Formats: sequence, structure tokens, C-alpha cells
Amino acid sequence: MRTINIGIIGLGTVGSGVIQIIQKHHDDFLNHQGVDIQITRVASRRDNVAREYGLMDVFSFDGMDVVNDPAIDIVVELVGGTGIAKDIILAALRAGKQVVTANKALMASMGAEVYEAAREGQTAIFYEAAVGGGIPIIGPLKNYLDANEISSIMGIVNGTTNYMLTRMSQNHLSYEDALAQAQKKGYAEADPTADVEGYDAAAKIAILASIAYNSRVTLDDVPTEGISALSATDIAYADEMGYCIKLLAIANRSEEGIDIRVHPTMLPKSHPLCAVNGVFNAIYVVGDFVGETMFYGQGAGSGPAASAVVGNIIEVARQLAADMPILEHCTCTDEVSLRPMDRLRTRYYLRFPVYDRPGVFAQIAEAFAAHNVSLYSVVQRGTVSSDVDEQENTTDVVVVTHHALEADMQAALAEIAQTETTAGVPALIRVV
Amino acid sequence: MRTINIGIIGLGTVGSGVIQIIQKHHDDFLNHQGVDIQITRVASRRDNVAREYGLMDVFSFDGMDVVNDPAIDIVVELVGGTGIAKDIILAALRAGKQVVTANKALMASMGAEVYEAAREGQTAIFYEAAVGGGIPIIGPLKNYLDANEISSIMGIVNGTTNYMLTRMSQNHLSYEDALAQAQKKGYAEADPTADVEGYDAAAKIAILASIAYNSRVTLDDVPTEGISALSATDIAYADEMGYCIKLLAIANRSEEGIDIRVHPTMLPKSHPLCAVNGVFNAIYVVGDFVGETMFYGQGAGSGPAASAVVGNIIEVARQLAADMPILEHCTCTDEVSLRPMDRLRTRYYLRFPVYDRPGVFAQIAEAFAAHNVSLYSVVQRGTVSSDVDEQENTTDVVVVTHHALEADMQAALAEIAQTETTAGVPALIRVV
Repeated sequence: MRTINIGIIGLGTVGSGVIQIIQKHHDDFLNHQGVDIQITRVASRRDNVAREYGLMDVFSFDGMDVVNDPAIDIVVELVGGTGIAKDIILAALRAGKQVVTANKALMASMGAEVYEAAREGQTAIFYEAAVGGGIPIIGPLKNYLDANEISSIMGIVNGTTNYMLTRMSQNHLSYEDALAQAQKKGYAEADPTADVEGYDAAAKIAILASIAYNSRVTLDDVPTEGISALSATDIAYADEMGYCIKLLAIANRSEEGIDIRVHPTMLPKSHPLCAVNGVFNAIYVVGDFVGETMFYGQGAGSGPAASAVVGNIIEVARQLAADMPILEHCTCTDEVSLRPMDRLRTRYYLRFPVYDRPGVFAQIAEAFAAHNVSLYSVVQRGTVSSDVDEQENTTDVVVVTHHALEADMQAALAEIAQTETTAGVPALIRVV
Repeated sequence: MRTINIGIIGLGTVGSGVIQIIQKHHDDFLNHQGVDIQITRVASRRDNVAREYGLMDVFSFDGMDVVNDPAIDIVVELVGGTGIAKDIILAALRAGKQVVTANKALMASMGAEVYEAAREGQTAIFYEAAVGGGIPIIGPLKNYLDANEISSIMGIVNGTTNYMLTRMSQNHLSYEDALAQAQKKGYAEADPTADVEGYDAAAKIAILASIAYNSRVTLDDVPTEGISALSATDIAYADEMGYCIKLLAIANRSEEGIDIRVHPTMLPKSHPLCAVNGVFNAIYVVGDFVGETMFYGQGAGSGPAASAVVGNIIEVARQLAADMPILEHCTCTDEVSLRPMDRLRTRYYLRFPVYDRPGVFAQIAEAFAAHNVSLYSVVQRGTVSSDVDEQENTTDVVVVTHHALEADMQAALAEIAQTETTAGVPALIRVV
């Protein structure tokens, strides 16, 4: 039996997990999958992990030593980012090596270049861990839901923000307190921008949309709104109205093109995504024959991400061991266009902090009417709005609209912002 | 490009769905997957479906005409059951044809014979639709969670009973009314035995356990208890106590062997399986590195099941089109033994309808104590039990135990049944 030699570049959290799995389950993979996977080289900026796992004799500080070793069949890139990781991946692919990576940033921004390099090297790249951590989602989309035309993907794909929203909802924490808790637990970075502003989720939905809609969608294509402007007030109102609020990464197929976006979203509590709490992730996928499906699990962490990476390694190793060409899926593109955000039609929840004066409802209602936004419900909350200075009595006007065009909504909001009744920036949450 | 010729045997609900998908998406499969899938033969006892889809020129009443046609690459068996379907599958495999099927009964009872035939014919069999309908679960277990040692599978794998339990829980229906509703909606058969007594779920967990634990588990190995003895009273009590009740198909890896069973189960409401309602299915899988995962979707119906069947067809077709040998997973077995049900250690919910006399608690408590069953809580419900004749005042004693051995529990129950205080058969629900 041919040994499959892998080289791991990047020995951080995920890299350590990959080593642990292979050291623990090598014989299982041999007996059950018929593959003899050997860690033949490792590389990292520091040698502590290699030392811990007894891999100093195959350790190198330079990732290119792994790429350039002719013995290596599969390069496992776990450095991340679009710097040195890009050089490693492109070089490995051009050299005809199979590549397994967890690199969402690279796949979401430079997928075209990566696939071109794979074509040159007549090889393939696998990146299940880039989205949803341990949750099998890229593979199922490519291999098990491929009988369907996918119409919609909605994902909770960022554990940090889902943890924060769960705490805000269940424990009535403020955004700031929820962030502090997440940081204390190690779920949020010291600089939480990529998570709380939705960029991490945007990269992931760009990858999923590219696969599901056979197109090339990049991070820059995704209109993104994070949770940093979300207040506990809106979560409480949503709860009363029978909704949960989740940061969703959405990609729908529409007649006008791919509708892609990341923003806080209100979902009826009966929706399965509302039951996804804490650091868990879930990706909800609708296909024309399969109907609704959902894939749930841990979206981050050493074990889950390493599980996905090793799954890919075995997938490639089995084909190499059978001397088969690696079966790559279509890396072609249908070049589906993107639908601009202002063509979105959805329902909206809005909360206007207003001065408590006569005629407030009327001014808001007139602005919506003038821009074809039809109201489903309007409630003036008896509480004093928390968002404004209390020089004058203020209150919240909470509006839920029927389906309206995003462009119309923005125009109405611009008009309302000019009125004297508004006492602060309105909260806007789109409703599914 | 080589055309892949498929022959479909059995044109019922699923067969019609398969035809619809291929007729609608043929060009997508060609453009994206590089496979030209042709429905080259169909067979069924009746010709109405073939007529409806314009397939009369390739129609036959005899499934063996499909198997014996040398042009056919993939035999799609959708007759079901262990009669003629078995002959078709064994003949097709021995003749070296690839087989795709949705046949849970055959795979759960005669898997060994089927795999032996596949070995003889040097070919393979795929059966994603046999468990969970449209939900990708067999493929992900084999291909994407294979980096893990699986420790636990808990599935809601029968839509009929989940629909009934949802109605009993949300609308406070009796078992009989829930069954009548399910039958009216077409979710339950006129003879609902296979669903309500748990046999359908038992077949499915036998299949999943065989894959997850690399063993041969058959339907007959699965201790099975359905929902027909379940009362609305217990569902209401469970709800008050913060639990949902689901019919779970369970397969755990234990030190004493595979712990496999089907029975109604109480789960804390925060468990993701509690949010799976109506006819939806979900399979919850725990692995040593990936942690908790869950796969959710429609477990039955034409579209979902056909989605899974066509997913398998594409999987095989891609390999055939590339002139590759079909990569079959290990059909070996570790011959893991089964742990007998009486070695189960779990928590129990029990409801005893008793005569309202002094000393009732004491008698029950003594019997449990004598058999090493430790009580977590005991509550006498103020209501008159609905389960007994009202010749004398009766009431419910509701007990929740700590972890106890099934053998001890059964011995305690046998003893309690002899006492004069019990006024009917106690309800027993295992708690996760």
C-alpha cells in the first residue's frame, strides 16, 4: 500500500488538532479507509507544537520547505490569511500537489487565481473547514445536494456574534457586556471587528454562494452590516413579537441575480435557525427538490476545524491511494450577476427614537407612504427611549412594514431623518 | 463524453421524483458535474408514470429487463422491501452494475448478503435515501465525519411519529386524534404499525450504526418501543418539567459494545432535537473531534428522497464518466458486539397510576431502593389519573430517577406491579 505523505504548514490551534487526530486515528484510517497517512513534514514560525507532538525531526521554520519536498503528496495550509498562505497555496498547486486548507480569506477573495493555479498544476484544492468549522457543508453542497437548484442559503456562520446575541437575548445583556463576556471566554478577539462587523460571515457566504450558484462571488461583493449597532431594546421587542434576532449570512437565487448580504435578521421563533444558540453555527439550505435542510455544529475551535481538514485529507488520500485522478468539481462559473442591495424586497422592523410630540406618527407614516412602503404595524412604546439625551421626553415608535424595496426604504428613512420629530438614529432590522 | 445510462425500477413516489429531477436538471448536471445522465430504461408494475413522463419507449413491466440490459450502467432500485427488490439488487450487483437504492428494509436486514454480491461483481451500492430522506447523512458519516470516532447518534428518523408527537405536544391532542390527523394528511398509512411501533426507525438506526461503528447491525438487533403507549398526560408533565418527548433512534458506542435502541425519549428543551417539529427529521451525531453536529431536513416525500437518490446517481456517474473504479468505502466490519438493553444506564421518568391510599409513596420508594434505583424527584399529581377505572380515587405518582441500570429498573417495576397500590400500567420514558 502506498503511503500518503502530508505536510502541514501552520501549527496553531487547527494544526495541532490535525496532528492529534492523525496520531490518534492513523490505524482507523488505515483499516477503514485503506489509507496510510503519514505526517512527513511540518512547518511553523515556532517549534513548540512540533516539539510537543514529537515532530521535531520533520520540522522546518519555512513553509516552502514543505511545498518543495517532492515526497509530499498533500500540502495542508493552516497559516491563514492572504499573505504567505497565498504564496504557499499557489506554489503547491502549480507544483501539482493536492492542497487542503481552512483559509476562508483566500478562498473568498482570490478563488479565481487559486483555481487557475490548480488548473495549471492539474491538481485540486479542498477547503471544507473554511466555512462552518466542523460542520460538513461545502462537501454536502457539492456532492449530496447537487441534484437540486439551490434557491436559498441562510447561515449563522460566526460563533462569536451568535454567542453575543444569545447572551443579549437570554440574559438581557447590553452589546458591550456581551462583547466583554465573549472576550473573557476567548470567543472574541481583543479587536473583534472582523466578527462583530460581519466581515468573517461575509467571507463565508461568498464561498458558499460561489459553490451553490456556480459563480464567482468575492468578499467585496457582499453588503455587510454587523451587530455593533444592535441594542438590547430591539432584541427584547423582537422577542415580544415572536422573533429571534440572528446575524445571518444570506445568499438567495433571484431572477435579478444573486441576492447576497450579511446583516442582523429577525426570524420567527419557529424557524430552526432560532434554536441555534451560543457558539454553534448552522447553515440552512433550500433546494428545489430537497426542500429545507439545515447543517448544525461547532463553527470554530481546534477539534471541529481539524475534523473538517482531516476529512478532506482522507478524501484526497483515498483517491491518491487508488491511483485515481482527483475528482474536482466544476470550477467553471455560470457568471451569474449579483443583484444590487437596493433591489432587495423584504419586510423591515424599525425603531425610531422620537420626541414625544403630537403628529409624530403622521410624519413617519407620510414619509413611508410617499415612498411606497406599506406598514404592517405601528406601536408607540410607553418607555423612554434609551438612545437619546433626555432634554425632552422621548419615546420609541416601532414599525413593522410589509414587503418593501430597499431603495424605497432608504429614501423614506432619509426623509424621516430630516424631520424634527426624530431624536436619534433609527434601528433597522430586516425580517425573514 | 460518455453517456451514463441509468435504469429505474419502481415508478412510485420516489421514482417519479427521480425522473422529474433528471428531466429538469439534465443540462445542469452536464455543465456543472460533467455527466450526461440518460434514463435509458424504466420498469414498473404499472405504466402510468412512464406514460406521464414520455418514457413509454423505454418502459418494461419486468425489472429484470433493466438488470439484463448490457447498456445500463446504474440500476436504480425503488421498488422497496425485501422481495423482488432483493432479487433485482443481488442480480444487478453480481452482473457488475452499480446500484443506487432507497431500500432501508433490505439494507437493514440483509446488508451482509448485499455487500457480498457487490464484492462478487466488483461493484458498489449507494443508499443515501434509505435514512433521513433528503438529508445528507450516510454520505457525510462516510466522507466528512470520518476523521472522528463517533460516540453517539440520536435520530428523529420517522416523520409520521414526529408529526404526531408535535401535535400531541403543541395542540394537546390524544394519541388517537394525532394518529387520525396524520392519516388524514397522508403522513400515516392506514396500517401505521411500522411507524408508530418504531420498526421504521429501527431499520434506519441499524443502517447508521453499521456505518458509524464499522459493524453489522441488523433490524433484529434493535430493541424497539414505539409511541402507541404514550399519553398526552406524560407529554404535558414533561413539558412542565422542561423536557420535550421525541421518538429517538439511538446508537451509542460504549465500552460494553454498541448500545442501540428505539424508544420515546425525554430531552431537555434546550437540546437541538427538541426544535425538530412536524414531519421533519434530524440526525444528531457526536464525534471525538467534531463534537456535536446535527443534520436536519425532510425525511420523506417524493422530492427529498429523489434528491438523495439523484445525488448518489451523480456521485457514481462522475466516477464512471472519468473511467475510474468506483471508490467504495470499507465494507469490512470490526464485529463490534452489541450491548444488551438490560445493561443500559440512564435516567427514567415514570408515572404510576395508583389508588389514593396512605403508604403509596413508601411502597414505590422501597421497591426502587431494593433494586438500587435512586430517585431524583417524586411528585404526587393532584389530578385523577385518566388511565384507570374510577371505582376508587386514583392519582398519578410521577418519579424521575437518577441514572439506574435498565435491569434494576425492570426488576423494581415487576415488584411494584405486585403491590396493591398500583391501579394500572406505569408509563416509562427514558431521559437523556
